[in-house]
Amino acid sequence: MTKKKKKVLRKQERSTEEIVSGVKAGIRSDLAQAITLVESNAARHFSKSQDILQELMPDTGKSVRIGISGVPGAGKSTFIEAFGLYLCSLGKKVAVLAVDPSSTRTGGSILGDKTRMEQLARHPQAFIRPSPSSGTLGGVHRKTRESILLCEAAGFDVILVETVGVGQSEAIVRDMVDFFLLLVLTGAGDELQGMKKGIMELVDAIVVNKADGENAAKARKTAEEYKQILHFLQPATEGWETKAFTCSALYDIGIVQTWNTIIEFLETTTASGEFDKRRNEQKKTWLYTSVKRQLEMMFFQNNEVKKQLPVMEEEIQEDRISVSAAVKQLMEIYKKGQ
Amino acid sequence: MTKKKKKVLRKQERSTEEIVSGVKAGIRSDLAQAITLVESNAARHFSKSQDILQELMPDTGKSVRIGISGVPGAGKSTFIEAFGLYLCSLGKKVAVLAVDPSSTRTGGSILGDKTRMEQLARHPQAFIRPSPSSGTLGGVHRKTRESILLCEAAGFDVILVETVGVGQSEAIVRDMVDFFLLLVLTGAGDELQGMKKGIMELVDAIVVNKADGENAAKARKTAEEYKQILHFLQPATEGWETKAFTCSALYDIGIVQTWNTIIEFLETTTASGEFDKRRNEQKKTWLYTSVKRQLEMMFFQNNEVKKQLPVMEEEIQEDRISVSAAVKQLMEIYKKGQ
Repeated sequence: MTKKKKKVLRKQERSTEEIVSGVKAGIRSDLAQAITLVESNAARHFSKSQDILQELMPDTGKSVRIGISGVPGAGKSTFIEAFGLYLCSLGKKVAVLAVDPSSTRTGGSILGDKTRMEQLARHPQAFIRPSPSSGTLGGVHRKTRESILLCEAAGFDVILVETVGVGQSEAIVRDMVDFFLLLVLTGAGDELQGMKKGIMELVDAIVVNKADGENAAKARKTAEEYKQILHFLQPATEGWETKAFTCSALYDIGIVQTWNTIIEFLETTTASGEFDKRRNEQKKTWLYTSVKRQLEMMFFQNNEVKKQLPVMEEEIQEDRISVSAAVKQLMEIYKKGQ
Repeated sequence: MTKKKKKVLRKQERSTEEIVSGVKAGIRSDLAQAITLVESNAARHFSKSQDILQELMPDTGKSVRIGISGVPGAGKSTFIEAFGLYLCSLGKKVAVLAVDPSSTRTGGSILGDKTRMEQLARHPQAFIRPSPSSGTLGGVHRKTRESILLCEAAGFDVILVETVGVGQSEAIVRDMVDFFLLLVLTGAGDELQGMKKGIMELVDAIVVNKADGENAAKARKTAEEYKQILHFLQPATEGWETKAFTCSALYDIGIVQTWNTIIEFLETTTASGEFDKRRNEQKKTWLYTSVKRQLEMMFFQNNEVKKQLPVMEEEIQEDRISVSAAVKQLMEIYKKGQ
């Protein structure tokens, strides 16, 4: 066995205790390994990751969790790089995580490698983690939540959770962050119409990116249009009026305003108690969602259920059987097969 | 035993076959009894109601299902009465059902008795059914869906499903109707801000009621404002632009326009295939929702789970245990207790 191989092996076999103390000390290789364990689908890794997490629980919860969403092309990477570097310049430690439901289909990752945010990736106060490359959306959900906790235990002050906004991802991200920011482009009319249902009522700020050069005036107009519509919609956070403004991540414009908006948000919601209320609700929701998902997984992965479900679906489509009767039959099949 | 008591008893004991043929023949006392069985929480009634439903399945699906929502005071009763009477005048048979989640708390019913819609209630082509007066929202959900099917089997052409719009009720109604109408009042700015999240993206038409006398101009302005906002939002139905117009149910204004809008909607969505697509999706959603609800009910009503759940919740709130660890423990408790 070569020296190198031995080293790799030893690294792979680091104990729960070693990883826990490493994460606590802010050692990023240990944090990375803890996240890898959390993301792993192997049963052995799962139990180890849970032990690590359990040990680290008292050190969690102390960061600002910020969600960032936007369609591809809105400039999320550029924005996160500019925003992250600004936070680092303020002395903050910044972690970037991603929720990417599309990766479950393509096997790819929206972050790919770290080349998208080269400067930030090299910064000693930053930590960038590509999105989990496999697993169900539900799995990604759990994994990202637990990765947030691990980053917090490692001393990161700000966690940026990025999502491309496919399927239910925004609702899921909303449920794990304190502040949710939507990055958009100009051309509000068309842009808005292509927007997902209810998305404007999930976010705390809409930031129109690429407000530079000839595009600046148009971007300001777009932000004004958003403001008008937001006026008629329900805010995502009680006691906080959803903001709309412009930025140019490429030219570092509006980055300070973004952070100041978040600070104002934190002050407002902390004073009103909304901040703690949401965090507590998020924990509760996470528990209930996890329980339900577990119950569903057990049911839908049952072999007999798997066989009968498509049959029942067809019977229902053809109105040959009532839904209640189908449910009753499926439950009997499930109980027998358990 | 008096004659009257005997009669009641006999009526209560009508067989499955008698009720099935009665419903098919459009006998409203049989329809009413079938719905009562569907609404009952007694196990014996449940199985009888399911037998009845199973027999009637081939006769279901042929009506137009219309959801009507609006805040208290928007004039839903007056609107339904005017609209229902107009449909009767066209020779249609009209059934009115209600989804009222609030009744689960108050034990009351939004329809109360039929005095709210006196004329319609007396009309030989109309059938008004107060909302189920007990049960969980999930239960009301199932009951109303099954009541729709029973009304269809009894030959009703149009089913109006009314809801007060508490909690998740609009999303639930959206999932059981073809066309969803939101009744609102003037004063859009304030009204709109008090509106539930995402509601405008659930409906196919927003009708500003009480557009009469001095209020007419204001109502038209409100409808225009809605149109502008709708332009920026996602329509509820693919290929259908959500409409906004005014009506005065009290003075029978805009009632014909409402029905003509629905006819246009039906023609458009039938031609595009969207109508059938939605109906099929609704059936599938109903099946999956029912299965999940059943699984959750079994879990959360388990005695050991009931005891441990509050303990776990507190542990999680205090960050003493991770969510995954709590889920794992709860699942073990559940499996043991089964």
